[in-house]
Amino acid sequence: MSDDFEMIATDEARALGESLLLAAGYSEDHARTITDCVVRAQMDECHSHGLYRLISCLDLIERGKVDPAATPVVEDRAPAIVRVDARRGVSLAAFEAGLPVLTEKARQSGIAALAINNCFHFSALWPEVERIADEGLVAIAVTVSHAWVAPAGGSRPVFGTNPFSFGWPRPGKHPFVFDFATSAIARGDIELHRRMKLPLPEGTAIDADGEPTTDPDKAVEGAMLTFGGHKGSALSAMIELLAGPLIGDFTSAESIAFDDGAKVVPFHGELIIALDPASFLGQAASDNLKRGEALFEAVEGQGARLPAARRYRARARSEKAGAMPVRRNVLDELRVRAATLEIKTR
Amino acid sequence: MSDDFEMIATDEARALGESLLLAAGYSEDHARTITDCVVRAQMDECHSHGLYRLISCLDLIERGKVDPAATPVVEDRAPAIVRVDARRGVSLAAFEAGLPVLTEKARQSGIAALAINNCFHFSALWPEVERIADEGLVAIAVTVSHAWVAPAGGSRPVFGTNPFSFGWPRPGKHPFVFDFATSAIARGDIELHRRMKLPLPEGTAIDADGEPTTDPDKAVEGAMLTFGGHKGSALSAMIELLAGPLIGDFTSAESIAFDDGAKVVPFHGELIIALDPASFLGQAASDNLKRGEALFEAVEGQGARLPAARRYRARARSEKAGAMPVRRNVLDELRVRAATLEIKTR
Repeated sequence: MSDDFEMIATDEARALGESLLLAAGYSEDHARTITDCVVRAQMDECHSHGLYRLISCLDLIERGKVDPAATPVVEDRAPAIVRVDARRGVSLAAFEAGLPVLTEKARQSGIAALAINNCFHFSALWPEVERIADEGLVAIAVTVSHAWVAPAGGSRPVFGTNPFSFGWPRPGKHPFVFDFATSAIARGDIELHRRMKLPLPEGTAIDADGEPTTDPDKAVEGAMLTFGGHKGSALSAMIELLAGPLIGDFTSAESIAFDDGAKVVPFHGELIIALDPASFLGQAASDNLKRGEALFEAVEGQGARLPAARRYRARARSEKAGAMPVRRNVLDELRVRAATLEIKTR
Repeated sequence: MSDDFEMIATDEARALGESLLLAAGYSEDHARTITDCVVRAQMDECHSHGLYRLISCLDLIERGKVDPAATPVVEDRAPAIVRVDARRGVSLAAFEAGLPVLTEKARQSGIAALAINNCFHFSALWPEVERIADEGLVAIAVTVSHAWVAPAGGSRPVFGTNPFSFGWPRPGKHPFVFDFATSAIARGDIELHRRMKLPLPEGTAIDADGEPTTDPDKAVEGAMLTFGGHKGSALSAMIELLAGPLIGDFTSAESIAFDDGAKVVPFHGELIIALDPASFLGQAASDNLKRGEALFEAVEGQGARLPAARRYRARARSEKAGAMPVRRNVLDELRVRAATLEIKTR
């Protein structure tokens, strides 16, 4: 471990997260679900979605957009559709409220969808599809973000970084899970290159005139590109439609307009689909899951990696140690915030 | 129109297709659904899935794998799941049999899935998602193919060209539809480059040692690559799982093993998901579809193209003319086949 990192015990990380969020004004449900999500990401050494995100959750309150005590409202819309209105809270409490309804509907109907509306969203999607796959169900999850990404052949931002996530149950093993942005580069990476004055990778951005650029400042004035050319662009458009108009929520363009310079995390909706293998196949489902295992063996047997393998290895290390590595500057910042909040809340 | 093409009247194309397929031994349902699919593709000037495909449907019978008179069996598996066993027939008759059940289930439950099993599959997926979108529903369709494509970081074929297709209803307009292979290049394009002794585009294939190659012969000995690196590879794995083990059907590796050198079209399953906007939103659905229109305007307003725009323009030309352009060598071949079959069936 490099000097840039410090080990923090899992219990201490949870206590720090919850006390910070509670002191800042989040409700117990929000504090618990946000902390659980960022601690799990940190245990997986997914630093971009780990404890670092607590800082933006604290900033979110200060910028006055979020309702930190919002209670999500669950609405049973149809035999296989549940909507949860997050009421301007963070998405995670809404997901917790909707999850049992989604899994029950998926088992009863064979397939079901959970739409989360009016939520602030900062987290990766893999924790959600992993939770659903842990229930023996197959899961797909999509959200929009802020309009930063140009469509293929275009020059101006329309799409968000629009992640696509998938989970598949593997009996006795961690699920097969992937979660990727449909943008060619993460938004955070653009900012990082900008601060470090480093050129962007080729093919990730265009300038305000629509010309390819590797200059991160010009990329911010212009637009990011999707991965995979017109195919990635088509997927990104699909995600706008599924997580936006289909469920009555913002597109990425509407999310950034709502933000209106506040620079908080995107405010929008999320669509999650769950499928029940047993409904398709009955008792044959478990035999057919072995076909999936044969596929994974064919991938790993030639030295290729399954998407979440690195995270799962990190998780095993963290579980064994009862502690996880966190960037020292993130912990320092969180401790400063804790000190400030203790003063405020005394 | 170049000399390589000949115009054929829509009625004549339909009559030619149906009579050829009937004479070859296909049932009326198969002859009608196959002809309808290839004529529609040809009207859209989608030559790779147009009348040309009649030839492979005729070859399919000669190679003894398909049951050209198979009657699909519809099974109501769960409130939101319908399966259709194609019984070794071509997928299209099975889709026709399952479509009304799928759309009814989607309207009742809000989301529903159609699994087609044990089908030979040669067609694009856009005709299917377009049909569903024409019913006012949102559609996703996926199938595997033959194992020709290596996973990211691998060197041996595991995945098929595994198409992903999406349809979105646009009131008063053709639906927003895309349909792309998750391989970096179409299988047919590899064959074309091989015959013409032309190098492949960079980044589309590897040789038997896993090294990048632009030599189509070496690509056939090695593997094709997915589009978009590890992200396209993840999507391709997802499609294997959804259209294979989830619905109790072949993966691409199992499909090519079943083929066993017969070189017919892949034999496998297909998963189609339909979502009903009205179930999510009730009367607000139509207002929310306008958010989708704003997205399309933002794409087209900057000179970028929507995925199916070229096909829709070709369709308008074909509908106006009552005729469509077909490659002369395809029509010649079909006429030779017709002459041969007339002799056989006399």
